[in-house]
Amino acid sequence: MKNKRLKDIMKTTDFNKIGTEMYHMVFDLYPICRSITGDGVRETLQYIKKIVPLEIHEIPSGTEVFDWSIPIEWNIRDAYVKDSKGNKVIDFRKSNLHVLNYSIPVQKKVSLQELKEHLFTIPEHPDWIPYRTSYYNENWGFCLSHKDYEKLNEDSYEVCIDSTLDKGHLTFGEYLIQGQLSDEVLISTHICHPSLCNDNLSGLATTVFLAKQLSIAHLKYSYRFLFIPGTIGSITWLSLNEKKVSKIKNGLVVSCVGDSGKFTYKKTRQGNAEIDNVVMNVLKNSEDDFKVIDFSPYGYDERQYCSPGFNLPVGCLMRTPHGEYPEYHTSADNLEFVGTKSLAESLKTCLNIINVLEENKKYINQNPKCEPQLGRRGLYQHIGGHPDSKNFQLAMLWVLNLSDGLHSLVDISERSSLKFGLISEAAEILATENLLKESMGKSKHRVIT
Amino acid sequence: MKNKRLKDIMKTTDFNKIGTEMYHMVFDLYPICRSITGDGVRETLQYIKKIVPLEIHEIPSGTEVFDWSIPIEWNIRDAYVKDSKGNKVIDFRKSNLHVLNYSIPVQKKVSLQELKEHLFTIPEHPDWIPYRTSYYNENWGFCLSHKDYEKLNEDSYEVCIDSTLDKGHLTFGEYLIQGQLSDEVLISTHICHPSLCNDNLSGLATTVFLAKQLSIAHLKYSYRFLFIPGTIGSITWLSLNEKKVSKIKNGLVVSCVGDSGKFTYKKTRQGNAEIDNVVMNVLKNSEDDFKVIDFSPYGYDERQYCSPGFNLPVGCLMRTPHGEYPEYHTSADNLEFVGTKSLAESLKTCLNIINVLEENKKYINQNPKCEPQLGRRGLYQHIGGHPDSKNFQLAMLWVLNLSDGLHSLVDISERSSLKFGLISEAAEILATENLLKESMGKSKHRVIT
Amino acid sequence: MKNKRLKDIMKTTDFNKIGTEMYHMVFDLYPICRSITGDGVRETLQYIKKIVPLEIHEIPSGTEVFDWSIPIEWNIRDAYVKDSKGNKVIDFRKSNLHVLNYSIPVQKKVSLQELKEHLFTIPEHPDWIPYRTSYYNENWGFCLSHKDYEKLNEDSYEVCIDSTLDKGHLTFGEYLIQGQLSDEVLISTHICHPSLCNDNLSGLATTVFLAKQLSIAHLKYSYRFLFIPGTIGSITWLSLNEKKVSKIKNGLVVSCVGDSGKFTYKKTRQGNAEIDNVVMNVLKNSEDDFKVIDFSPYGYDERQYCSPGFNLPVGCLMRTPHGEYPEYHTSADNLEFVGTKSLAESLKTCLNIINVLEENKKYINQNPKCEPQLGRRGLYQHIGGHPDSKNFQLAMLWVLNLSDGLHSLVDISERSSLKFGLISEAAEILATENLLKESMGKSKHRVIT
Repeated sequence: MKNKRLKDIMKTTDFNKIGTEMYHMVFDLYPICRSITGDGVRETLQYIKKIVPLEIHEIPSGTEVFDWSIPIEWNIRDAYVKDSKGNKVIDFRKSNLHVLNYSIPVQKKVSLQELKEHLFTIPEHPDWIPYRTSYYNENWGFCLSHKDYEKLNEDSYEVCIDSTLDKGHLTFGEYLIQGQLSDEVLISTHICHPSLCNDNLSGLATTVFLAKQLSIAHLKYSYRFLFIPGTIGSITWLSLNEKKVSKIKNGLVVSCVGDSGKFTYKKTRQGNAEIDNVVMNVLKNSEDDFKVIDFSPYGYDERQYCSPGFNLPVGCLMRTPHGEYPEYHTSADNLEFVGTKSLAESLKTCLNIINVLEENKKYINQNPKCEPQLGRRGLYQHIGGHPDSKNFQLAMLWVLNLSDGLHSLVDISERSSLKFGLISEAAEILATENLLKESMGKSKHRVIT
Repeated sequence: MKNKRLKDIMKTTDFNKIGTEMYHMVFDLYPICRSITGDGVRETLQYIKKIVPLEIHEIPSGTEVFDWSIPIEWNIRDAYVKDSKGNKVIDFRKSNLHVLNYSIPVQKKVSLQELKEHLFTIPEHPDWIPYRTSYYNENWGFCLSHKDYEKLNEDSYEVCIDSTLDKGHLTFGEYLIQGQLSDEVLISTHICHPSLCNDNLSGLATTVFLAKQLSIAHLKYSYRFLFIPGTIGSITWLSLNEKKVSKIKNGLVVSCVGDSGKFTYKKTRQGNAEIDNVVMNVLKNSEDDFKVIDFSPYGYDERQYCSPGFNLPVGCLMRTPHGEYPEYHTSADNLEFVGTKSLAESLKTCLNIINVLEENKKYINQNPKCEPQLGRRGLYQHIGGHPDSKNFQLAMLWVLNLSDGLHSLVDISERSSLKFGLISEAAEILATENLLKESMGKSKHRVIT
Repeated sequence: MKNKRLKDIMKTTDFNKIGTEMYHMVFDLYPICRSITGDGVRETLQYIKKIVPLEIHEIPSGTEVFDWSIPIEWNIRDAYVKDSKGNKVIDFRKSNLHVLNYSIPVQKKVSLQELKEHLFTIPEHPDWIPYRTSYYNENWGFCLSHKDYEKLNEDSYEVCIDSTLDKGHLTFGEYLIQGQLSDEVLISTHICHPSLCNDNLSGLATTVFLAKQLSIAHLKYSYRFLFIPGTIGSITWLSLNEKKVSKIKNGLVVSCVGDSGKFTYKKTRQGNAEIDNVVMNVLKNSEDDFKVIDFSPYGYDERQYCSPGFNLPVGCLMRTPHGEYPEYHTSADNLEFVGTKSLAESLKTCLNIINVLEENKKYINQNPKCEPQLGRRGLYQHIGGHPDSKNFQLAMLWVLNLSDGLHSLVDISERSSLKFGLISEAAEILATENLLKESMGKSKHRVIT
């Protein structure tokens, strides 16, 4: 049934069409007011569930997860500030960024002075509304453009935040695609941001469509997709699934992949994990510029996956990193800031990464003493018929020479400066001729089906 | 009898004279039509045998050597193409490159169209005849200059290749110089090219005269010289001598060393073998520019020696590498393309390499706690009397400091940026004063005499 | 009593004042005629003993110390050369550099020609007197400016060197400050140079005031200060204290630190010892330019500490290295060549190095699975209140992430590119909150008190 390899599926994939679908998803999810808990998250996950069969988990407030405990649940119906004439000078219904995320309920009259203690703006970008949160400090507040802030006069203001903070749940989505092996690749994206497109509806859309594509492929690894609130979500999942963690052989946090910037790959804490080599190989073999940065304990959920007690081989794929574009965490990270083409390319890059991971085998040369005679096996005909025959012959020689059980195909691609696709193609033909045999002994894979 | 060390022999060697002898050898062997088997190889080896006492091996056609088998033997007496008027438009007697090497015998009349399917030219160099082979595909053909090709008119051509392809032998030469140790240094050169000077009569001449020089020296290592047809020759030798292979501690393939280009050293597959460090040290200490390239499984017989089942520490010394000069594998690789001076310098470089290998000892400082008092041993007089006294003193200090059994003299030369000769000289004087003792324990050398 | 940490002492130290004291010490010691033995050394050590409680050792001439033996003791009362009119053309009382150090006694009339065989000048710097020694070759001689040398006419000269060379002692000073651990840091400076300021009264003054500052601090390591004649002094100490050597975990030779050049750190022979990383971290974190050079067996007493039989982790801190400034070993290395400010900065740099050594702990994150919740421990208030709050938060995250028992705080500082002080401060606060525990198991420290 699922007998198609990912690389074959990719050949017939219409990435323009999927890019449009991804953008539509971003468009649909944009208005929802999400936070680390609450109905916004639930609504978002229900939307995703129509595309991929998510399992949705609800973890009760107060549950202890390592050093943390699940917070009380936040929901909000409305919020506004009215002047003494009854005009709404700030209105949550116009943008959910207007409310300090996790604001406690409030309903009172305040002076301009008191009001200002609860207002947040960005003076350098007077048209933009900032995005601010206060998850673990009880507070209320409003965010607004500095332009609007400067219009506020001395007055008596009616402040209303119709929110609830009650015992409830933290909600997250999980989807496991079972492959041949129980060894897992973790793909994690956060789902806790309200009306912000690049951070992180772009990651969400890319992850969903990546899952959708993988679900129809014949896969070696199992793939675990996590749709979780940032920080507390990954902490929660790790706490509840500590025993499964050893299965994770590679992983990727996906975020900020909808803008037009070049790709940025942040390496795992290990720094030389297979995923690091694979992503760098894919980015190098693309025609586009890219950047690789070392792990640092500041960023997205890789902070938790790469904490020293886990030290999982999980990297992070972004375009322009968080904090390095002025629109970050403001109302300017909107539907215009992300694009169909960027989203499609991000999906394609993720698929390329997974494809190389899937195909990154180690082989043992079955004829290791001297070169085998390629001619009498008709391999020179394969070479002659290849569009890039000179490099394809080199690829064969490199694969034969380095297939000593120590070098993976990605290693061989790096060493030879030949594209992974060429190396992999050469390896497959050589394996067909029984000149190579896949090296199984050294891996700790457990086949479960 | 053989009590002279190589470095002392080198001091009195007249390299100009030897360069002339080397060029004469190239000149004499140039007209012979060689291939991977046949009488051309035999004639060449008999010529060499007059200079160094080769053992000549004949391996029967059909003998299985790893994945290959010894091919049937090729010999050729004559070949030509005549036009309908009886004019020879292509004539093997003018250049043995005119015949596709290993052409099957043929005697027939053909049209221009059919003839052209069997002709090879180089349109970019219309005066040059290409060198082409078809060892493992039955075929016949002629190589000619593009200029002559364009003169061919519609006509009926008489094609004659008076060759034989019969059960016979693969012929190669071997010469072992026994040193103090059974540990071997392998020097390998191919002998299968017809009238081509740089590739590889230059390698042949250099290897022969290297062997001649080493044969009169007192040597630590044993030296095994192989004069073999490319690819099939090294495969054959390795297959017949699998048990001897572990004795090979260092090795060098010598080829394309007669042109005026700078030296290129291609490292072993191991990449950090002693021979790699030694050759790089020698090239660095020469005054000439040079290039070092990493191993790749494309090139000469190092491909076989460095196949993963052997992974021998064998590098390759060239000047301009194969394929990087336009004259490569054409009639322009002729007697003008190689020179006396280049040949002599190549021999000298090989001798320098062997000399450093021979002298690359590890010592143990016998007075490792603090510096010894050089003065009371008269060592400052040695220093004062040295033409480069400041560096000679530094060399003594470096040798004493790093002679911990871990650093060879080449390592010390690299670390100190002092020339190997100076380091080696310092070590000898210190050893004479019993301040150093050669480290034997760590090496796996077996003394046989 | 000694409960103040070095970093707290440093905060209240008046380095301008100490710089002046250091310069005074150089000024006072400048006129003394020192050598590797003799009363000049004794007088110098007695001077130092007034500042720090030195133990003064006297080792008899003839004592065998490894490959050497303690030489006979040299003392000198007077020396001059008089012309036939009785004018002193060279006078030891004007500069003790005028006498070849370790000159044998001599009293005779000589011709100009014979005299010249015993004269040393620097033609390139005609106003300067060179400094020359002849410890292990019996000789006598005078050093003078080339200008004065050229004024010498044919004449009969009376030569007088009123020196003694008799059985006596080699004298050196030692001062051990006991810390919490028996593990030692060695600080070594040579004391054998006569009227030369940078080489090495600057090192002497810096070492003395470093000892003085450390003596009032609460210290983790024990500190052993050696005031020794160059070469023979360190050989003597190592020979007499061979059993103590294994306690030395880090060390520094201090010399040539009074000139206005930038700092030069010469690494230990090991090349990656803790002291290497610490000094490079301190120099990087200063605002001044600096240079790091690899170990070489030429220089000061690090030659002996780093001889292969000891291979101690001892580096060398200098400003402009010996031999790289023209004033080196001449009368121009005088009281003008060194300065108060340079001396004070050198002391400060030494104290910074010791401080980082003292504080360079390894911790184990006690909450290694995911990040701990900093907020509920009030740590965000610490962060908010910090003058460099953004980097301080990063410092906390880095310390938590890398506190796996493998990374020291210096390692974390290097990896994060955050200043050591910030990293150390973050670690202390995290330790207070029991989020970190110092890693003791892996170190081989033995607590003795």
